[in-house]
Amino acid sequence: MTSPAPGLDARATAKTASDAAPTAARGAVSADPLYAQVASHYRQAIAAGTMPPGSRMPSVRALMGLHRVSLSTALQACRLLESQGLLQARQRAGYFVRPPRATRLARAAEPRQTEADPARFVGVHERISDILTRGLATDVPVNLSGACAHPTMYPIRALSLQAQRLLRRRPEILGTPPDPRGLVALRVALARLALDARIQLGPDQILITHGCTEALGISLRAVTQPGDAVAVESPTYYGLLQILESLGLRALEIPTSPHTGLSVEALEAAAAREPRLKAVVVVPNLQNPLGAVMPDAAKQALLACCEARDLALIEDDTYALLCDTPQRAIKSWDTTGRVIFCSSLHKTLAPGMRIGWMSAGRWHARVEILKYAQSRPNEMLGQAVVAEFLGAGQMDRHLRALRARLATQRELMAQALSDHLPAGTRLSVPAGGMNLWVELPEGLSSMALFDAALDKGLRLSPGWMYSNSDRFDGFLRINAGIPMDERQRAAIAMLGALCASMRRAQGYTAGP
Amino acid sequence: MTSPAPGLDARATAKTASDAAPTAARGAVSADPLYAQVASHYRQAIAAGTMPPGSRMPSVRALMGLHRVSLSTALQACRLLESQGLLQARQRAGYFVRPPRATRLARAAEPRQTEADPARFVGVHERISDILTRGLATDVPVNLSGACAHPTMYPIRALSLQAQRLLRRRPEILGTPPDPRGLVALRVALARLALDARIQLGPDQILITHGCTEALGISLRAVTQPGDAVAVESPTYYGLLQILESLGLRALEIPTSPHTGLSVEALEAAAAREPRLKAVVVVPNLQNPLGAVMPDAAKQALLACCEARDLALIEDDTYALLCDTPQRAIKSWDTTGRVIFCSSLHKTLAPGMRIGWMSAGRWHARVEILKYAQSRPNEMLGQAVVAEFLGAGQMDRHLRALRARLATQRELMAQALSDHLPAGTRLSVPAGGMNLWVELPEGLSSMALFDAALDKGLRLSPGWMYSNSDRFDGFLRINAGIPMDERQRAAIAMLGALCASMRRAQGYTAGP
Repeated sequence: MTSPAPGLDARATAKTASDAAPTAARGAVSADPLYAQVASHYRQAIAAGTMPPGSRMPSVRALMGLHRVSLSTALQACRLLESQGLLQARQRAGYFVRPPRATRLARAAEPRQTEADPARFVGVHERISDILTRGLATDVPVNLSGACAHPTMYPIRALSLQAQRLLRRRPEILGTPPDPRGLVALRVALARLALDARIQLGPDQILITHGCTEALGISLRAVTQPGDAVAVESPTYYGLLQILESLGLRALEIPTSPHTGLSVEALEAAAAREPRLKAVVVVPNLQNPLGAVMPDAAKQALLACCEARDLALIEDDTYALLCDTPQRAIKSWDTTGRVIFCSSLHKTLAPGMRIGWMSAGRWHARVEILKYAQSRPNEMLGQAVVAEFLGAGQMDRHLRALRARLATQRELMAQALSDHLPAGTRLSVPAGGMNLWVELPEGLSSMALFDAALDKGLRLSPGWMYSNSDRFDGFLRINAGIPMDERQRAAIAMLGALCASMRRAQGYTAGP
Repeated sequence: MTSPAPGLDARATAKTASDAAPTAARGAVSADPLYAQVASHYRQAIAAGTMPPGSRMPSVRALMGLHRVSLSTALQACRLLESQGLLQARQRAGYFVRPPRATRLARAAEPRQTEADPARFVGVHERISDILTRGLATDVPVNLSGACAHPTMYPIRALSLQAQRLLRRRPEILGTPPDPRGLVALRVALARLALDARIQLGPDQILITHGCTEALGISLRAVTQPGDAVAVESPTYYGLLQILESLGLRALEIPTSPHTGLSVEALEAAAAREPRLKAVVVVPNLQNPLGAVMPDAAKQALLACCEARDLALIEDDTYALLCDTPQRAIKSWDTTGRVIFCSSLHKTLAPGMRIGWMSAGRWHARVEILKYAQSRPNEMLGQAVVAEFLGAGQMDRHLRALRARLATQRELMAQALSDHLPAGTRLSVPAGGMNLWVELPEGLSSMALFDAALDKGLRLSPGWMYSNSDRFDGFLRINAGIPMDERQRAAIAMLGALCASMRRAQGYTAGP
């Protein structure tokens, strides 16, 4: 790609495709030449999925009218987008949005380790806290460290209007202690949502929590004692490691494939050696950070293994609704109440609201006690707003749009990484969600990159955070949830340059 | 008192003094005679504190004009209120609101027990859950079991408008993950609020939690291990007992005076016998359920005892802002970081919002870890709304009004109890807040009363919930936070009748 690398441009991210009217490029005060402004407008529309691959670009004549520009400016804009790999010209038919180029990077490798280390007490808090604190202390123009999509990709206007209506109609909701049993309408709506994962639940089997984090913590409190061991995926979400650490539990890290998820074989072998193993925590659909989706057979094998060894199976469903094609939850095969199903609307509906929920099978009564003693019920306002949104049947349409945009953004991010990261980099592009898992070429440390990139205005999520070991220092998790723009492209080019210079310093041949 | 006991009237509570226009009584469709409707209007105004003791009642002539009633109706209304003890006639000057009558009931007694029992694992959940669930399953016209004031006594309109403004201006707040460090503006405002309790804190020493419940739980997780003992007041808030139970801790119940709070002497003696005692949880200002306020000397003695024995001192400040006169927090004498200060705006500002906070001294870093791992930061919307309200200096005025209304309501409730409960009943009327603690005459069981009253449409909070022992079955906690009306009066008359008939059944001489 011959990107002109126009530098970190504050305007480009502030203005997303959905905000921009067709003639906005002209009106904006910009130092960019006019053709670049027109090109940027369509680049954002492509990144946002408004113009999907294969769709036709407005004709040069149409561009002249729409943006009130000259023929040569309209042509220059199209040629710039063509040179950036976003458009392709078809003879006599005009320009079309180009299907994403096959990425130059190799597919993520299977884990080298096939056996689990012995379970260890977790001691990650210092490192994670240090990384988060330093990241937050630096005001960066580009942040690829999160795991949420951009706020404009969530239905915040609809939710906000709903909240305003509710506050006008029932202000006493702020002055009345919430019902300990939680809002029935929300639990009914969530039971309906769970049907898509093939789970049959009644509203009484659902408990509302402060995000999935509280649900996971309460699950572990219900089935373990301090000193017990809990099997987790390796790599795994650092938030889970922090929960294990705070509860005095030992983590048994099970090798996990970036494609098919947790290795049930490795779990079987490790479980046989660990007498105090009490539970397995697993993210079967769009594992964080790998993006893996377990095949149905593996999900069933995992459940059978937990049945045979009398382990609690804690299923974290956080990302499942973002799968490109619907996937079954392990809970859907559970006939004995062994699966504790934990979910959240934090990634799928409203990252600013802490609406999580759980259904804990045979441990549900215990879990209700723990939640009530730990934090009392959630506030009613948020529950009522979300219940209304879900009840009005708006969720399906929102999810379809969100999935489509994320699919485009994953491809654009993969392309940008492919354009700039050194040869030898490996990449997993999952079939849903926003997390890309990048394996750096040998010798590169994600922690060194984190520090160097932060200095230059880019916040990363180093692989080092995702394990109680140092095993994943050579990895990065990259958020593809923010619409691609020039500023992000420039930041990734800068990341590529950092990798190259670090490798040169180590005596490797420079990358592209 | 010669109350006509007009029966449980749904309209009377639905319409509070603040809603009612001067002529509302006339317009309402009511089965009550006109003079009773006029009287009810002023009874509500007196209960609400709109007409404080000593203030002048409108003249009979003025009443005729205001309510468009005859002379005899206006006179009848005043005489009814006089007969109910609410007005007194002064010769040639008209009617005035009467200062509360001295209650006929004896003052609450000091605890019979002066030594603590050995620490025991807590097993209260079943009983508490059963009581709460049965209470909630029954739709009652009168609920005296809560510990919040009526929604209309909180500034819900101001908070609701603030929330609507914020949602209009910044809907993206719903789509953005909250900052892990919480909202600085709120922490600054809370540090300002803490000055009133003589505590000096920086915003970095404050952590926002999901209510005081989460703050207490996290405090205990920071300073104990399962099996450790924790000293608590006896009686104590059942929510604290549930936390201890859920964390596998043992409760050391310390005798506590309804007037001067926890007995530091008894604590000293008990601590000497309990090697695994790690912490004391205390509510020094307006203890729940007793309403006790510890004298400053006792607060300092408690802190000294904790210093000498190396115990964490967890101070629950939930009700302190409702004290009629400002009280110092124990934290204000803490120079070594030994006091973990836990507070909440749940009782003082907005029972529908779960805004708690804590400042954990030497354990603050540990507490931040535990909160982050347990439930992540609170949502931003509620934090921003409250920060704005506190920052605009509206809290002082709101608290002054709330305290004045609660003072009136406590007196009216004390009077109603005095009018109807049998001789031998004892009562503590605290210098603030909404909780009255009632000791029933010998032989009466709060659990038996709970069941019988629930059948008749009155929900009570039996003393049995407030200890890991059966020691307080002869007590009730009564909520004086709901403006007194005919329906409540009738319910209390019914409660008195229940008590009398139970005592008769046991062969005691009937009460009044």
